[in-house]
Amino acid sequence: MAPAFWFSASADTAGFTLSMLLVFGSAKLLGEVFERLKQPAIVGEIIAGVLIGPPVLGWIAPNAVLTALSELGVMFLLFRVGLEVKSSELMKVGGVALLVAMLGVMVPFIAGAGIMLAFHTGLIESVFVGAAMVATSVGITAQVLSAKGLMQHPASRIIIAAAVIDDVLGLIVLAVVSSLAEGQVNLAKLATTAVAALAFTWVVARFGTPAMRRIVPTVEARLQAGETQFNIALLLLFGLALLAIYVGVAAIIGAFLAGMALAESTTERVHDLVQGVSELLLPFFLVGIGMHMDLGPFREASTLGLAALIVVAAVASKLIGCGLGALSMGRANALRVGAGMVPRGEVGMVVAQIGMGLGVIPAGVYGVVVFMAVATTLIAPPLLALSYRNVRPAGAVEGFRLG
Amino acid sequence: MAPAFWFSASADTAGFTLSMLLVFGSAKLLGEVFERLKQPAIVGEIIAGVLIGPPVLGWIAPNAVLTALSELGVMFLLFRVGLEVKSSELMKVGGVALLVAMLGVMVPFIAGAGIMLAFHTGLIESVFVGAAMVATSVGITAQVLSAKGLMQHPASRIIIAAAVIDDVLGLIVLAVVSSLAEGQVNLAKLATTAVAALAFTWVVARFGTPAMRRIVPTVEARLQAGETQFNIALLLLFGLALLAIYVGVAAIIGAFLAGMALAESTTERVHDLVQGVSELLLPFFLVGIGMHMDLGPFREASTLGLAALIVVAAVASKLIGCGLGALSMGRANALRVGAGMVPRGEVGMVVAQIGMGLGVIPAGVYGVVVFMAVATTLIAPPLLALSYRNVRPAGAVEGFRLG
Repeated sequence: MAPAFWFSASADTAGFTLSMLLVFGSAKLLGEVFERLKQPAIVGEIIAGVLIGPPVLGWIAPNAVLTALSELGVMFLLFRVGLEVKSSELMKVGGVALLVAMLGVMVPFIAGAGIMLAFHTGLIESVFVGAAMVATSVGITAQVLSAKGLMQHPASRIIIAAAVIDDVLGLIVLAVVSSLAEGQVNLAKLATTAVAALAFTWVVARFGTPAMRRIVPTVEARLQAGETQFNIALLLLFGLALLAIYVGVAAIIGAFLAGMALAESTTERVHDLVQGVSELLLPFFLVGIGMHMDLGPFREASTLGLAALIVVAAVASKLIGCGLGALSMGRANALRVGAGMVPRGEVGMVVAQIGMGLGVIPAGVYGVVVFMAVATTLIAPPLLALSYRNVRPAGAVEGFRLG
Repeated sequence: MAPAFWFSASADTAGFTLSMLLVFGSAKLLGEVFERLKQPAIVGEIIAGVLIGPPVLGWIAPNAVLTALSELGVMFLLFRVGLEVKSSELMKVGGVALLVAMLGVMVPFIAGAGIMLAFHTGLIESVFVGAAMVATSVGITAQVLSAKGLMQHPASRIIIAAAVIDDVLGLIVLAVVSSLAEGQVNLAKLATTAVAALAFTWVVARFGTPAMRRIVPTVEARLQAGETQFNIALLLLFGLALLAIYVGVAAIIGAFLAGMALAESTTERVHDLVQGVSELLLPFFLVGIGMHMDLGPFREASTLGLAALIVVAAVASKLIGCGLGALSMGRANALRVGAGMVPRGEVGMVVAQIGMGLGVIPAGVYGVVVFMAVATTLIAPPLLALSYRNVRPAGAVEGFRLG
């Protein structure tokens, strides 16, 4: 009866509320099932998306609203993780993290492109698949480590720092292969992109914390409205996410940097309020990843073999590449760092999507890349749990020693 | 470069993040300005929507995502308010609240329809305008009272209870005038609608609290995942909001009832997490109301006079009708209750929209009704502040006495 209109008791609101219930409920249900199977809840939440979404039951499909909620969800996840990380401690591990990120870009790229070339695929298509295997989806790892109270572990810090650098490097790789695909390599433009991304990330990571330590108390003292710290935090979050997009890195990197900048100048109350938003929205991010799963490889024997090979290469190349980079911290930590960099999640999907948009990746290969992106995301949490199994949760405890 | 795709660093994400920053930032800025002018911040946040939205600058327009965020925002607002209200205390004031609600429906309806008839408007159009003047937007009042720590005041309880009943009565009035407009009055269907709405509301209000007092600890003890109470709370929120829509009342009534059902069985932690979501999303609700403002009446002298008259009647009729209903509590409280029922907000807009959809309200009158809906919402907060000026904030203090 009622026409489509906002916050009316119309079919729109009913559909929207139903999808909230469906996404949130199925995520929590499958999360609980996986907890009982001694598996990370996060894997259950992603599988909930595979089940209720287009791959299996088709009860719900991605739309503008769910997409927005999932984007907000991963932004708030990284923001919350940032709030737990001191920039000084991240800067300290910068050298090792840079090595981890660089090897973690090179090895997967060579592995991915190499496999495709071995299958007699064209050069451009092959390097695009390689590029899709580069980017790490840090949100998944961050959530696993944060949920287990392991964010303060040295290996965890390396993972976070390396993932940030990895995003910048991934941006550069993507820019290079995209311009190759378009047939015109503009070196000046590539250099500008790279410098802007690096400069933004470094400046915010380096000067964000001292700046906020001055700005937050000053602003707070002058404003009269309630929950001032939380409001400042949200404005910085949205502002830096937007700036990050403009310089070319992912919005979540901006969100993470915003959190880190505020880590030393906000109260526990701000953490709790952010946690509320994060708890509500995270399932939309995880279910969203699952909903985009492509089960196409299972329908054709030819792509199934390729998909299996690509997934194995995707896991092994990060374990080896990133592990080598972190070997100076000992074997156990090298394994942790490698496992933490395995998930490709939404970032891998985006690269595949761009490749398809440029017409260099055919639908079959697109399906394989998306399958790889989701599969690595499902494999990583148990791998991480395994690699950290001897570590006691530290929570906020300082001076944590590894076992 | 990148195609439209979720959580990619694409134009979509940039636009979405920019609108988050714009809506949240402008709301907080204008809210702060109004705080400094000793006016309720909420008025500033609505005016932010008028300014950045289509009525003035046109920087941003309502879309599916902003609408969803604003619907979630008002749901979480009412949910949070429900968490502060004990159902036993609400049931106690049921008699007075019923009288307030009934007079608060009749007087505005007669005033609205009467004015239109005096202007020689058709009967159907006149009763539709009357119906649009009936419904109270309880969110605005709840936010003002909650922000000032006045939710425990007896007059506040009457307002909340009366607003819930008002929503059910408003539904019945709307169903009657809609069927009049459609030319076929189905009494059996009307009766079913009324009974279902009343039964749903009463059953949840009466039995929700004892049910949750049993269910929450049992479920919590059996589940292993984290933040169990918060997850149960959200599932009840979405579930009851959906049920409310299906029985015909507004989603926010379901949200409020869900909060009230959980008021006595959840910890402070759940309140904090809900508060985080509410703080993030409330500006989207308020800015959303402002964005829908229709300044059309200012362009035509003929409708300007009518608009002014309708606004005055809308304010006076609730003050008088609801005030009379609450007169047994003394004059000061009667004024508070009357002021609390003044805002029509989104509910009035929905009725106008339905009338336009049915073809019984022409565009000019639609503009007048929307103007009335927003104007009453802007007038109510200062009126409320004035009527409560002698009351000290009680917060959660029990046994509060009125001055």
